[in-house]
Amino acid sequence: MSKKLDYPVADIRHYLEPGPVVLVTSRWQDETDVMTLGWHTVMEFTPSLVGCIIASSNHSFELIRSSRECVINIPTVEMIDTVVDIGNCSGAEVDKFSRFGLTTSAASKVSAPLIDDCFVNLECKLYDDCLIDTYNYFIFEVVKAHAAAGPKHPQTVHYTGDGEFMAAGKHLSRRGRFVTQNL
Amino acid sequence: MSKKLDYPVADIRHYLEPGPVVLVTSRWQDETDVMTLGWHTVMEFTPSLVGCIIASSNHSFELIRSSRECVINIPTVEMIDTVVDIGNCSGAEVDKFSRFGLTTSAASKVSAPLIDDCFVNLECKLYDDCLIDTYNYFIFEVVKAHAAAGPKHPQTVHYTGDGEFMAAGKHLSRRGRFVTQNL
Repeated sequence: MSKKLDYPVADIRHYLEPGPVVLVTSRWQDETDVMTLGWHTVMEFTPSLVGCIIASSNHSFELIRSSRECVINIPTVEMIDTVVDIGNCSGAEVDKFSRFGLTTSAASKVSAPLIDDCFVNLECKLYDDCLIDTYNYFIFEVVKAHAAAGPKHPQTVHYTGDGEFMAAGKHLSRRGRFVTQNL
Repeated sequence: MSKKLDYPVADIRHYLEPGPVVLVTSRWQDETDVMTLGWHTVMEFTPSLVGCIIASSNHSFELIRSSRECVINIPTVEMIDTVVDIGNCSGAEVDKFSRFGLTTSAASKVSAPLIDDCFVNLECKLYDDCLIDTYNYFIFEVVKAHAAAGPKHPQTVHYTGDGEFMAAGKHLSRRGRFVTQNL
């Protein structure tokens, strides 16, 4: 994986729209946590909005609600066992960073850490909390994005439930069929 | 593709959580339309909720807002050119069903049609309209689901922007690593 560079926040659909499983890091006061998350969608280009369901049973829920921040980290298929294991224990009982040997770097606009082994890190601030109580739905603004310059198509992993995943396959261009303003 | 069977609405994350591009059909009064959509997320198992961003510039927007219904149809990679072409013309100008030779069947709980060539059809009713005005965000309840019994893993297509797509790759099981209640 190449060194990470700043990435335009208005373009993060490139990484999120295909629907990968992500690792969400959070920090509040003296606690730091990480969770696995699969229920998210891009909502807007500018501001760069992402909606995520974070069940209130997750230890991360209160850290994110209180700090109003998080980082969305995108792993590749090489990390699949870690992704599963992170989702199958609770930050209330273990320090997942230590248990899974996750190395992190400081974010620049939020207090939650960036996971180094993930090829994309999206620093997020809570933009709208109106649906947290009713649906556990958090609307975040991506305020800074980091992405590895290469490889061009890191192989993401997509959850289908029941302990099964789909790994990203081949990439296909259909640019020639698009009306320019729809690209 | 095998004959479609009823599928449990609480399990539709199996098809939507991996993040495929979908075709959304709608009907209001004497108009029927179909649009390509990539910004969606599962929100809840029961009721079976799905959130979708439908930009107000789409001809389908008013049909869906007025009828408070739609069908989410999931295509496979064989339909990629049709998926692109549907997203690059407007139902205000053309009858997309006729132009693209889409054959349809009647849904059982909504008036919008099911696209026969899509291996999954999810009949949806608008569940909550509170974020339509602010974000073009529709929260639907899946009230009936149809899925082809086979193949086991139809190859979905995932949009990454700029006219480029990722086709679903191989499937990997990690059931053995999961805590049972997290499956």
